[in-house]
Amino acid sequence: MKAGIVGANGYGGAELIRLLTNHPSVQVEMLISHTTQGEKVETLYPHLSGILEKPLEAFDADVLAERVDVVFFATPAGVSKELLPKCLKRGLTCIDLSGDFRLKDPSEYETWYHKAPAAAGQLADAVYGLPELNRRQIESAHFIANPGCYPTASLLGLAPALKDGALEKGSIIIDGKSGVSGSGRKAATGNLFSEVNESVKAYKLGTHQHTPEIEQEMAAISGYRQSITFTTHLIPMTRGLMCTIYANLAKGYSTREFIEMYRHFYKKSPFVRIRPLGTWPATKEVAGSNYCDIGLHVDGRTRRLTIVSVIDNVVKGAAGQAIQNLNMMQGWEETTGLRYTPIYP
Amino acid sequence: MKAGIVGANGYGGAELIRLLTNHPSVQVEMLISHTTQGEKVETLYPHLSGILEKPLEAFDADVLAERVDVVFFATPAGVSKELLPKCLKRGLTCIDLSGDFRLKDPSEYETWYHKAPAAAGQLADAVYGLPELNRRQIESAHFIANPGCYPTASLLGLAPALKDGALEKGSIIIDGKSGVSGSGRKAATGNLFSEVNESVKAYKLGTHQHTPEIEQEMAAISGYRQSITFTTHLIPMTRGLMCTIYANLAKGYSTREFIEMYRHFYKKSPFVRIRPLGTWPATKEVAGSNYCDIGLHVDGRTRRLTIVSVIDNVVKGAAGQAIQNLNMMQGWEETTGLRYTPIYP
Amino acid sequence: MKAGIVGANGYGGAELIRLLTNHPSVQVEMLISHTTQGEKVETLYPHLSGILEKPLEAFDADVLAERVDVVFFATPAGVSKELLPKCLKRGLTCIDLSGDFRLKDPSEYETWYHKAPAAAGQLADAVYGLPELNRRQIESAHFIANPGCYPTASLLGLAPALKDGALEKGSIIIDGKSGVSGSGRKAATGNLFSEVNESVKAYKLGTHQHTPEIEQEMAAISGYRQSITFTTHLIPMTRGLMCTIYANLAKGYSTREFIEMYRHFYKKSPFVRIRPLGTWPATKEVAGSNYCDIGLHVDGRTRRLTIVSVIDNVVKGAAGQAIQNLNMMQGWEETTGLRYTPIYP
Amino acid sequence: MKAGIVGANGYGGAELIRLLTNHPSVQVEMLISHTTQGEKVETLYPHLSGILEKPLEAFDADVLAERVDVVFFATPAGVSKELLPKCLKRGLTCIDLSGDFRLKDPSEYETWYHKAPAAAGQLADAVYGLPELNRRQIESAHFIANPGCYPTASLLGLAPALKDGALEKGSIIIDGKSGVSGSGRKAATGNLFSEVNESVKAYKLGTHQHTPEIEQEMAAISGYRQSITFTTHLIPMTRGLMCTIYANLAKGYSTREFIEMYRHFYKKSPFVRIRPLGTWPATKEVAGSNYCDIGLHVDGRTRRLTIVSVIDNVVKGAAGQAIQNLNMMQGWEETTGLRYTPIYP
Repeated sequence: MKAGIVGANGYGGAELIRLLTNHPSVQVEMLISHTTQGEKVETLYPHLSGILEKPLEAFDADVLAERVDVVFFATPAGVSKELLPKCLKRGLTCIDLSGDFRLKDPSEYETWYHKAPAAAGQLADAVYGLPELNRRQIESAHFIANPGCYPTASLLGLAPALKDGALEKGSIIIDGKSGVSGSGRKAATGNLFSEVNESVKAYKLGTHQHTPEIEQEMAAISGYRQSITFTTHLIPMTRGLMCTIYANLAKGYSTREFIEMYRHFYKKSPFVRIRPLGTWPATKEVAGSNYCDIGLHVDGRTRRLTIVSVIDNVVKGAAGQAIQNLNMMQGWEETTGLRYTPIYP
Repeated sequence: MKAGIVGANGYGGAELIRLLTNHPSVQVEMLISHTTQGEKVETLYPHLSGILEKPLEAFDADVLAERVDVVFFATPAGVSKELLPKCLKRGLTCIDLSGDFRLKDPSEYETWYHKAPAAAGQLADAVYGLPELNRRQIESAHFIANPGCYPTASLLGLAPALKDGALEKGSIIIDGKSGVSGSGRKAATGNLFSEVNESVKAYKLGTHQHTPEIEQEMAAISGYRQSITFTTHLIPMTRGLMCTIYANLAKGYSTREFIEMYRHFYKKSPFVRIRPLGTWPATKEVAGSNYCDIGLHVDGRTRRLTIVSVIDNVVKGAAGQAIQNLNMMQGWEETTGLRYTPIYP
Repeated sequence: MKAGIVGANGYGGAELIRLLTNHPSVQVEMLISHTTQGEKVETLYPHLSGILEKPLEAFDADVLAERVDVVFFATPAGVSKELLPKCLKRGLTCIDLSGDFRLKDPSEYETWYHKAPAAAGQLADAVYGLPELNRRQIESAHFIANPGCYPTASLLGLAPALKDGALEKGSIIIDGKSGVSGSGRKAATGNLFSEVNESVKAYKLGTHQHTPEIEQEMAAISGYRQSITFTTHLIPMTRGLMCTIYANLAKGYSTREFIEMYRHFYKKSPFVRIRPLGTWPATKEVAGSNYCDIGLHVDGRTRRLTIVSVIDNVVKGAAGQAIQNLNMMQGWEETTGLRYTPIYP
Repeated sequence: MKAGIVGANGYGGAELIRLLTNHPSVQVEMLISHTTQGEKVETLYPHLSGILEKPLEAFDADVLAERVDVVFFATPAGVSKELLPKCLKRGLTCIDLSGDFRLKDPSEYETWYHKAPAAAGQLADAVYGLPELNRRQIESAHFIANPGCYPTASLLGLAPALKDGALEKGSIIIDGKSGVSGSGRKAATGNLFSEVNESVKAYKLGTHQHTPEIEQEMAAISGYRQSITFTTHLIPMTRGLMCTIYANLAKGYSTREFIEMYRHFYKKSPFVRIRPLGTWPATKEVAGSNYCDIGLHVDGRTRRLTIVSVIDNVVKGAAGQAIQNLNMMQGWEETTGLRYTPIYP
């Protein structure tokens, strides 16, 4: 199977290359970039020297249709909305890593992304690609909206308890902490080493565009819509994302019971690992891998559940999950090309 | 005025030295250490070469009484409980940076610190030294229990809203994020660079010893006791501490009204800075200084207040606050020797 | 093929596990640890949960001989010297990642390691396992002394020029820069995050134990012995090692000629990559991989060559190289199980 | 005394503000910025809130002449060359932190900076402001070319040995290692956290513009000109700079003798500290301070001297040294406003 990557100059694109060059059934055939077209990818990313050396080309749906079978869009918000439908029309399998097709309600996209949304029909076509929760739909899909990094960690952390009805409606608070790679390779003062190092910074309070995505998919799990409080923080690290999730309990479960519930819920999900009682994950423990590790704690004093959910934002939060989706769409083993042990230390 | 520092080999002790060597009215006279006694402080801390060169001596209350006027205890839990009363008896002014005298209820100390508490009478003598909230008591004190780092950021972040009755009882969640220096200079695998770097880790869920301290002082502000959910995270940075605090609103204030309330509350507190609407602090913006910076946000969708409160854990969370307390006890200008502009970047 | 890892609780051991769990022809069968024996490896290293869950066992050469075919020693200096000969005697293939068998002259080991050396006969048996330079010997070996991290980067950086006679004898200076993981997982004050972060530190000037190893192997390349100046620095990063090497030119080559010479020299070495004119590598560009990237520069003003050589100290500087050696000893493709694209960013 | 800062939006400017707000005899009166003019400095740098709140203004030499006594230029190369002469003409004391007036030979500026040089007459007027080496000239100066960060650490490290004639001509190699703040606050991909963290990168081999500055001032010390090999590396830290300097010995001194020579040479220099035998400095040990710490080692095997010299690049390598120069020009105590103990950890 041959793949094209649109936005190959960004971190998401580079990570797709890293993972796909080791995938037994996929070959990276075409790299597409708007801003650095004409350059060679190994000039932009010397770590690819001798591994994948290719020019960055312009986007052309006809050329893509001739040369590849699947197209990954690792583009900033607002781009795939324009380009992806042209690929769909030509029968290409499409996986969009951006937020353009995740929100089913176009007005929500407009509100939170401050851009014109994709056409409603196209939004309806896209399957929300969170494999652990949406298995059947993904297996028969040809067009995937790959989840955001915060939604991935949040939803995997919440799903079992939410589905069980164990959480009090309206009580959910998500405290997100992300490494800097989530902001991409764009030169921005706020992402300079000297600004970020030795600092934690809270940002986008009440306005983060992943908020409606989390709420939409929480509703898909629980059957009702609720608002969450979602706060994001920039952490002085490159990769890694943690969501610390707080919720009031609607049922009197103990930590031990939650752990059991979660293990049962994810027993067929090879990439979700539930930590034993009294231990909680660190982001480093999933670095470079497609795992989502989850730790749980019920505070007896406040009857509140705390969920700690970690991923590598570039893998399970982006490129790895996209490939997991491709595997499932193709009927391959879900873990194909993704059996990376986390890099530690 | 002459000062002795017990625990001068730790980070708290080293920071007291940094700050006191620039204090116009205090002279560091005696450095005391249990484990490194006999060594020179400039061997342990070459950054002090040519600035303060002194041997580390053994603790002896009589010698202290002869040579110094004030004793700072920058010792691990369980130490000052034994040593400090001997200094008090000899009429020395005492400032304890450890947790030994902060909890008024000895059984709480036992529960959370897993050690025998100080005598109840001594606990009653200690004044909780959070200058912004406890000004009058501190001014007439001779024995200060210097607040913990998380309590400092949490209480300064909560006080105005709590005092106003603006927060729904029982709804308060504190998500704490701290740099590694908070764990001190003790060699521990968990604090090795290779373990901490490129990682966020949740730790001590439901068991952090600062929990009862925060609850005790919250009660002193609001007039009633309530339980909080308090979760702490280790961040890959040396200095800096952030508390992101969540609470349901009991009154219908806007962000703007909270900002005004906070500015009014702290108008005579030179070390508390309230951020303008739509901006929130980063820990780097207080690095090396005694400031506590606070940002506020009311989420209209969930009627919840988010408070972002940052300090340098070694300064306002420890040594700086101790000196601020000393200044107030001595009737000096509160900011004496503490007018450090944060180091940026 | 079944493998045992002695010292599985250290970083070298953990990395062998990471790499071997993805190796098509090797299975990790036995984990051995002196200090943490009885514990489960996934407790020490939660990142291995669900990937390799095994108890850490005591060393017993007979048990090893029954259960495994190859033994990796990822032990501190002085350990494999005692244990490895027992495995050799039982016919096991042995790969030693420590320095115990690298120096052919026992008195040098004594001088630089301050320990009693291995028996001279055993030293003679060990093949120095730098695959790019020692291919034939390795292919017929059953006992490998795996090179140190600094020697790997230094020797790969020097070999082509040294062999050519292009460098003035006695003029070679190696300025080494290493991440902290090189010091292992032992709790030591000097490796605490708070000590290392935001700092570069020079250490072991004139006394680093890798000095005689580099000189011994340089002599093997050039045919004569010379002393080098070798200085090492601790860099605030976990993985990564750079040697910046300086030498006076004995021949009038240009940078371009050196690049050509190096490319030719390494044309059959899949893990060595020579950078194009005017560019030099960063350690991040080989992170998590077995590559050694080399950049070159001839300064026309001083007639001096500067060589910049980078590796991931835990991979090409330790566990990856050990597996590369195993591959060659077994007659497998050199890159088997090692085709990792560097993780970037 | 009233000061104006041109380039107040950059890191050099921000550091001048940090240091001058604590200076007893200088008041920051005017902040000038080309790109962010009209904004408030506390918006760009929230850490200055409540400390210095001022608008950034346009450059106007007449206004400056009315309102200030001294002007600091913390501007990119090529700017002060145009603006500073206008201030000189109006009788203002000028301190230039950029490289525009450091090279006495205009053709060297052109060669290394790739820009048109300042007029030769103006170059002659500027006093090279390395206080420890140039005391008398600085005391009577009104126009200072403040040294670069690498030259400061290099020259202080070399001066005593060079002056003594202890070093073999033509043998000097400087391996420089710098934190990222040296590159300023400009958004550039190469300085993004995700690019720099967990990486060491060699850059500008053979072309760094500080090369001729070091050579020029070495010649001023030794009486003859020689070429050096100078290589620079980007280190994943914000502040801190180390030069590891290698030279062949022309005289048979021991390490101990060099230490004595250096201590004698700098005995009246309060900001230079020579480390005891067998210890070498780390950059963290001077962080936030104006110190330059130097460690020495003679390698008996190669008869080579290694000098390890560290500074905080933003303080002794820029703003702190500028103020030290001002102090000396004004006849104030050299350390006025600069008695900062390094921040550790």
